[in-house]
Amino acid sequence: MSELRRDPIVNRWVIISAERASRPMPPWPAPAAPDGSFCPFCEGNEHSTPPEIMALRPAGSAPNGPGWSLRVVPNKFPALTLQGAPAPEDHGPYQRMDGAGVHEVIIETPDHRATLGAMDAGRVTDMLRAARARFRSLAADSRLACAQFFKNHGREAGASLPHPHAQIIAMPVVSRRLIEETCAARERFRETGSCVLCHVVAHELAHGKRVIFQTRHFIALAPYAARTPFETWILPLGHRARFEQETDEALADLGAALSRVARAIGAALDSPPYNLILMSLPFREGGEESYHWRLEFLPVTSRLAGFEWGAGFHINTTPPEEAAARMRENS
Amino acid sequence: MSELRRDPIVNRWVIISAERASRPMPPWPAPAAPDGSFCPFCEGNEHSTPPEIMALRPAGSAPNGPGWSLRVVPNKFPALTLQGAPAPEDHGPYQRMDGAGVHEVIIETPDHRATLGAMDAGRVTDMLRAARARFRSLAADSRLACAQFFKNHGREAGASLPHPHAQIIAMPVVSRRLIEETCAARERFRETGSCVLCHVVAHELAHGKRVIFQTRHFIALAPYAARTPFETWILPLGHRARFEQETDEALADLGAALSRVARAIGAALDSPPYNLILMSLPFREGGEESYHWRLEFLPVTSRLAGFEWGAGFHINTTPPEEAAARMRENS
Repeated sequence: MSELRRDPIVNRWVIISAERASRPMPPWPAPAAPDGSFCPFCEGNEHSTPPEIMALRPAGSAPNGPGWSLRVVPNKFPALTLQGAPAPEDHGPYQRMDGAGVHEVIIETPDHRATLGAMDAGRVTDMLRAARARFRSLAADSRLACAQFFKNHGREAGASLPHPHAQIIAMPVVSRRLIEETCAARERFRETGSCVLCHVVAHELAHGKRVIFQTRHFIALAPYAARTPFETWILPLGHRARFEQETDEALADLGAALSRVARAIGAALDSPPYNLILMSLPFREGGEESYHWRLEFLPVTSRLAGFEWGAGFHINTTPPEEAAARMRENS
Repeated sequence: MSELRRDPIVNRWVIISAERASRPMPPWPAPAAPDGSFCPFCEGNEHSTPPEIMALRPAGSAPNGPGWSLRVVPNKFPALTLQGAPAPEDHGPYQRMDGAGVHEVIIETPDHRATLGAMDAGRVTDMLRAARARFRSLAADSRLACAQFFKNHGREAGASLPHPHAQIIAMPVVSRRLIEETCAARERFRETGSCVLCHVVAHELAHGKRVIFQTRHFIALAPYAARTPFETWILPLGHRARFEQETDEALADLGAALSRVARAIGAALDSPPYNLILMSLPFREGGEESYHWRLEFLPVTSRLAGFEWGAGFHINTTPPEEAAARMRENS
């Protein structure tokens, strides 16, 4: 079983997971499964994943067999596994916990070569609805404090398999970044009486320079302090704290918006590797009035270097206003 | 001129530096300069860098000509440049500042193919003493709040040139990571009456499992919550807050220790790319009693992926106890 260890100085937990070292890393870019190396996520290979948690399949088709259009399965090499009742223990100057949590994979499509930008928007919506269903289910387990949804596309973005998939890791503690963001958002709300991202949305709509597009429910923008060239945020126009409370209709709108962002970034940067991450209020904390959920799309254009590791500052060589202008042309 | 922009939610500044996009990235691994592509850091090419700030050269040799054993020069594509009197300005929900600061390069040796592990320890000491001299000089400029020393080795660690060099970026604000660490260290000191890293050093010496070696002034250890396989810290055995206050004798000891760590990691991981970073108390803040400076050696063994970006947690597949055991054999 893996272990959570807390850095002795700051509130940074690390997952020590020797088991994950054994997961296979196939060649990348991988050939399509049918004529190339074996892909555990392709149709017909359902038994090479742990049994499915949920799937979209025609009425009457059997679980863990072909015919599906989307599957959610436990990660075969999980960073965390849910056992026992996790609680932090002190060890001298340190803290540790059993690595109790959940690590799941959303296989977005049977099509090995599909991409978010080229996929039908309805399929992207299905993926978002599957994530919402899993968030709702995980939130009901009192041992879990929050969940991180993410998608790594391309080896340079940390993906170990090329078949389109996203992941969810649910944790027994609130993630460091959510602690920082929810505390800062709450503080700002106390000072100003409003949500900082509602202020950002209003400011961006009034100025326009960093807006990429707007839909009925969402806005896509290049964030003012973008960490990487072409970093893009998609956030609700109205104040909403939790992704899992979005309606079917809003998620259909979001699916179309996300696929449009993926196409615009793909056109601007020639289909870069990227990380997609969801920031949403932890399961069991207040803060609904001050926290505003969002998707972050981070193209990988360079390596994190010593300055970023040491200072925690990023250096971005593309001003977000330029990135937004290029993306407006392409979206 | 570049610009510092603050993330609207948390205390994260980003340097927006369109100028740095124009820096050349030669092929890597680069052939040695004499028979391969042009290297601006090799002997004879002194005029392809900005004029030197300091150098180690025989008495009587002319600045910016051959004969040196170490040079410190301004970065030709600086992330920050010192102009005017920087101050944060509000822009709606955001804050910005002119990118006022200093970005310097320490060229460690004329030998294009040298590495920290294979270099004479005296040369590593010279590099550390040059960094100390620059820290002392930068600390005297009241416009600068702190400096980040770092070294990127290998393209995958973010290095753009293969010739051995380290860098210093001095900033008009305290880096995010130093704010977090100094606040947490001060809080811990208030609670327990002692420095958290003094406690760590005592605990590790008593237990031994994560100790790699000990010298007269320093200890090399695998940190309890290591973020990457074979992450290694070198820290003073006694309580010392600032790198720039180390003595000549301590830096000679540190040079030997750093070269020994580089050799041990090189042997364990087959000469991996790495980032080396220095964490030291900001120039103009209290906290001498609670902050303990250190070097962090971070081998690059995988890509940062969506989970790390989103959650701020790292997943490490090599327990630090195993890494320390392997490094003890090799050091």
